[in-house]
Amino acid sequence: MSWQVYRRSIKKKRSMHIGVVGKINTLVNKVLEPLHPHVEEHQPKNIKHLSHTFSREKQHLVFYKYQPIGLVRKYFGEKIGLYFAWLGLYTQMLIPASLVGVFVFLYGCATVDDNIPSMEICHPKNNITMCPLCDRVCSYWKLSTACATARASHLFDNPATVFFSIFMALWAAMFMENWKRRQMRLNYEWDLTGFEDEEDHPRAEYEFRVMQKSLCKDQKSQQKVIMPVEKLTYRDRLPAYMTNIVMMLLMIGVTFAIVFGVILYRISTKAALHMSSNPITRNHVQLTVKTTAAIINLVVILILDEVYGAVARWLTVLEVPKTDKSFEERLIFKTFILKFFNAFTPIIYIAFFRGRLVGRPGSYLYVFESYRMEECAHGGCLMELCIQLSITMLGKQLIQNNLFEIGIPKLKKLIRYIRSKQGAFQEEERQKKLQRYETDHFLEPFAGLTPEYMEMIIQFGFVTLFVASFPLAPLFALLNNIIEIRLDAKKFVTELRRPVAARAKDIGIWYNILRGVAKVAVIINAFVISFTSDFIPRMVYQYMYSPDGSMHGFVNHTLSYFNVSHFQDGKETMDPLHLGYSIEICRYKDYREPPWSATPYEISKEFWAVLAVRLAFVIVFQNVVMLMSDIVDWIIPDIPKDISLQIHKEKILLVDLFMKEEQGKVYILESRPSAGGTEKCSRSNNSNSTVAHPHSGLHTNNNKNL
Amino acid sequence: MSWQVYRRSIKKKRSMHIGVVGKINTLVNKVLEPLHPHVEEHQPKNIKHLSHTFSREKQHLVFYKYQPIGLVRKYFGEKIGLYFAWLGLYTQMLIPASLVGVFVFLYGCATVDDNIPSMEICHPKNNITMCPLCDRVCSYWKLSTACATARASHLFDNPATVFFSIFMALWAAMFMENWKRRQMRLNYEWDLTGFEDEEDHPRAEYEFRVMQKSLCKDQKSQQKVIMPVEKLTYRDRLPAYMTNIVMMLLMIGVTFAIVFGVILYRISTKAALHMSSNPITRNHVQLTVKTTAAIINLVVILILDEVYGAVARWLTVLEVPKTDKSFEERLIFKTFILKFFNAFTPIIYIAFFRGRLVGRPGSYLYVFESYRMEECAHGGCLMELCIQLSITMLGKQLIQNNLFEIGIPKLKKLIRYIRSKQGAFQEEERQKKLQRYETDHFLEPFAGLTPEYMEMIIQFGFVTLFVASFPLAPLFALLNNIIEIRLDAKKFVTELRRPVAARAKDIGIWYNILRGVAKVAVIINAFVISFTSDFIPRMVYQYMYSPDGSMHGFVNHTLSYFNVSHFQDGKETMDPLHLGYSIEICRYKDYREPPWSATPYEISKEFWAVLAVRLAFVIVFQNVVMLMSDIVDWIIPDIPKDISLQIHKEKILLVDLFMKEEQGKVYILESRPSAGGTEKCSRSNNSNSTVAHPHSGLHTNNNKNL
Repeated sequence: MSWQVYRRSIKKKRSMHIGVVGKINTLVNKVLEPLHPHVEEHQPKNIKHLSHTFSREKQHLVFYKYQPIGLVRKYFGEKIGLYFAWLGLYTQMLIPASLVGVFVFLYGCATVDDNIPSMEICHPKNNITMCPLCDRVCSYWKLSTACATARASHLFDNPATVFFSIFMALWAAMFMENWKRRQMRLNYEWDLTGFEDEEDHPRAEYEFRVMQKSLCKDQKSQQKVIMPVEKLTYRDRLPAYMTNIVMMLLMIGVTFAIVFGVILYRISTKAALHMSSNPITRNHVQLTVKTTAAIINLVVILILDEVYGAVARWLTVLEVPKTDKSFEERLIFKTFILKFFNAFTPIIYIAFFRGRLVGRPGSYLYVFESYRMEECAHGGCLMELCIQLSITMLGKQLIQNNLFEIGIPKLKKLIRYIRSKQGAFQEEERQKKLQRYETDHFLEPFAGLTPEYMEMIIQFGFVTLFVASFPLAPLFALLNNIIEIRLDAKKFVTELRRPVAARAKDIGIWYNILRGVAKVAVIINAFVISFTSDFIPRMVYQYMYSPDGSMHGFVNHTLSYFNVSHFQDGKETMDPLHLGYSIEICRYKDYREPPWSATPYEISKEFWAVLAVRLAFVIVFQNVVMLMSDIVDWIIPDIPKDISLQIHKEKILLVDLFMKEEQGKVYILESRPSAGGTEKCSRSNNSNSTVAHPHSGLHTNNNKNL
Repeated sequence: MSWQVYRRSIKKKRSMHIGVVGKINTLVNKVLEPLHPHVEEHQPKNIKHLSHTFSREKQHLVFYKYQPIGLVRKYFGEKIGLYFAWLGLYTQMLIPASLVGVFVFLYGCATVDDNIPSMEICHPKNNITMCPLCDRVCSYWKLSTACATARASHLFDNPATVFFSIFMALWAAMFMENWKRRQMRLNYEWDLTGFEDEEDHPRAEYEFRVMQKSLCKDQKSQQKVIMPVEKLTYRDRLPAYMTNIVMMLLMIGVTFAIVFGVILYRISTKAALHMSSNPITRNHVQLTVKTTAAIINLVVILILDEVYGAVARWLTVLEVPKTDKSFEERLIFKTFILKFFNAFTPIIYIAFFRGRLVGRPGSYLYVFESYRMEECAHGGCLMELCIQLSITMLGKQLIQNNLFEIGIPKLKKLIRYIRSKQGAFQEEERQKKLQRYETDHFLEPFAGLTPEYMEMIIQFGFVTLFVASFPLAPLFALLNNIIEIRLDAKKFVTELRRPVAARAKDIGIWYNILRGVAKVAVIINAFVISFTSDFIPRMVYQYMYSPDGSMHGFVNHTLSYFNVSHFQDGKETMDPLHLGYSIEICRYKDYREPPWSATPYEISKEFWAVLAVRLAFVIVFQNVVMLMSDIVDWIIPDIPKDISLQIHKEKILLVDLFMKEEQGKVYILESRPSAGGTEKCSRSNNSNSTVAHPHSGLHTNNNKNL
């Protein structure tokens, strides 16, 4: 505290010359004085000013340095200032990421015609007959009909993607480091370097529970001496913890159940539509099912997001955390876990499980004995992943973030306005009579920064977690954020009641969550590259099996043979002559022994070889990327050099000032032998400090000599 | 600084009651005053006292709490105090680790008779004929002769080892966390919480180089204005950096070359000894070669350790680091890299490469066209790893740490003593005439803590890196450290000149190195379990191939068939009837197709399956253990609760004191309108601080209301 005051006094001296810091101080003080008598006179101008530069002007669109962060901090306090600074940096960092992402996508577009596997699939002479994709109603099909999917999947599944996911992992590390540096710089500029979180007071709910507990104890042991219960122990909170764990698992279970429900919907609809006699319906089966399923998923995610938010709050209230800070952290943690599972479970299913638990022709896997598990078209799972990712990401961003965030406050304001209109006042009279704080009361109250951060972190998840399968994600995020910054600015300035300004040194638990997401992203990307994409099988074919070291013959190599006479009874297709000729051997995508081998349909040696290489790739990728992130972390210093120099200089100034002041005190005291009751105290202090100083100085010198 | 002084003054007030802190302060001050006139009077008593409790008394043997850390700090300064505290904690933490390690080893001993694979190998009815282990001179051999090795390797290769390596990874995380807490506690007790590293002054060498550079510039541009060169840029240091990189790579190359040389020695000696006609020599071939090779390795490690220490110092001097701290850090980093490679390269070779690059019968791999690569006996590589580990670890600890550390200073002291004796003085007269500081001068000068820490970190590496293959390592380390603490104590107190006391808040770069070693340990243990031990092949056999789900038939499953007629010309054994009967098919340890398959001697499907499972195990193990370590890191708070409460309380006290003092000042100033030149300054400061206070208080309140 003394330190703070001293620093401030130094600052003030300096600011005599600069002027800005002093103004900031007085402004902050004004802002923070509740019910300040002449705030109203200033505020409208202030709002106009802030609103204009913050949410209107074009140059303040994106960049941190063009955002009026100083003004934001003055008006809203450090906590919200840090949010906008963070959002600005994130958006700024998204620019290189989306540029590289677009290049990777364009590389895919440019090389799609040179891609031998898709050429082989599309070539009409490659007359490969595939096994039916569903029982009975589906028939054999030509691989060349999957030409479009194969070409499209090359856009997202090419060697550049591997490079891009390494790049994005390093990008995430760079982002963290840059944020640490920017935070440090803002801390310095906003005079927070010496600021430490003061002890929070217990929340009223907590005090109430403690009182209840001590009353209970008193009643039980009236004969004993009354001992006040000071705190809630682990045992008091045990039921709440149990409820928490059970409910969290239940909620995650609900997410899984819904994803499973959507899978069932997809399987059954597909089967039903396949059975339809209308040929047009049958042609649009894939599109219809995929689109409706993705939309159902999106709607479910949107609804569950709201439900989960409420559940997390309820669970946190049950826990009765001691302080507001701990309440917020627990709430954020729970909300994050639930929303994260909600957003990513369907995507993880598509990326890692879809098309893997299929079985093989003649012995498919069935759910509920009748629904055959979904298969992917050739090279199709990655495409589906892309579709799901883009629909979820765009849908979430457009509907939830922008429509809900802006629309609902507007709507609520309107409702509140209409309601008050039904009162006795006439509109115009009322307008005139109303004070500024009364009109402001029609605005939505400020609900904390948690939803804003949460939205961005989930988006960060989309940008980093599955970037290997969707290199355009950073671009989408960038476009969203350019709008988001302005909408947020507008919302904060004009749609919400002005929040109580709060101080904060950092973004708190969000930083840890970001780090966690970045760590998980490395592993998930490794698995997407090695298991979802065809990168590893292609490499293995080229270097182990290809007769001429080229990719020719790759498609044939990935397809196994099946003798159609081995279909189970009642499962064979009803229309065996669909392609116009009778079929004996059909092909399916798997590494299995052919029917004429000694162990027909057993998993083949190629399968194990490819699996081993895939796993080896995961190990190498994960460790190399983690090592590189650590190196980035290590090379970039957390505190910018100019700031650390400046802090050092200030410290020296401070010591000088302190020494002078001590001398001054000694001088005063010596020239005036007795000056009242306080003199004794300060003299003893003085002697202490003056004695202590040379010693510590000497101490320092010794250190240096070592 | 002001903060420090204030804290100290508060402390002093409290210490009026306690007494100890005050004494410590005065003692520290005494210790730090160079050439203090009456130090000599106190020192002998002091030494005796410290020497007694520190290095003699039995209760101070091991534990941190029984070590007189307070005394050590008082006499040697914080830096050395922290070293002994760290060593104490490390030793203390080794106790549970070595207990569990011994249990794991005993579990191996207890289950050795139930181990089906070694029973199968030892059973005389299992008449498996193995292919020769070397060309021409070796002959076929019975698998049952490898019985002893197989039984012994079960001691170190059983399911408990997997548990133990997970345990040790968590142990390492716990150790880090505990150290952070203990360090925090010591920081508090030693009044270092507010201590920050003061700016180091540039080293004389650095200043000299800068001067040289500016002189050069002056000569070049005499017509221009003289501009002083302030610092060495990256470009100035480029040659030094290049030399550094080249030399480091060269040194690591030397390590590799020496390991390769030892391999060649082993191969060639083995071949030569096999050729000898003396049957006794031939019987002892294995033992002779292994022992001599391990001893050569040890000697080379010991010699190179000294060389590398000198090289690292030379390289760091070349770099001309600016400050002493940066010099020390760079030196430590380089020394650590070189010594780490030196100690662990032979072990890594045995663990991961030995017996893998062998080829197969009929097409062995040769080095220099004539030396066949080494093979391991059945289940033998793990045993060799154990032998190598124990010899290196014990040898290093006994010879290098204890013999060198104690012996060499004693020797040097003796030499110095003898030399001075050759002078003119008579012995007894001299003894009487010598001052205390003169006799002390005969002692070895203090060379820094680097060698002490380095030794312990390399030991920490032995304890964590290969713990999966050698569960007794923690026990060996514990036994060494119990002696080490006392020897170090004795050395510091009686064998070395008393070092200049230095302050330090933490153990600096060593903590980062420890963290790095712990991280690498997770990966290496994963690889040792899955690749060096037979754990995964056993699991795979039991769950994938075993006809009855038991381990019966495992040995047969791991051995491939070879038709002896397929040996290359000139490579077949000279003594085909060694076993008394003619042999058509011999067996070798590998997963390859039998001679009668369509693709004889090709890598089989089992090989790929086992490899895939091995790699999958590495991924699962690494991620699970890293997650668990992170959770340990997250659950255990870095600052002990009582300390953080205490610090908080002190802060409140401090603010009170400060406020009172400010009031006192205001009172004095008000009662005395003009008091000299300094008055103006302190008044302006006073007004600043008194104005600033209510505001910051208000600020705080606002925070809490949010």
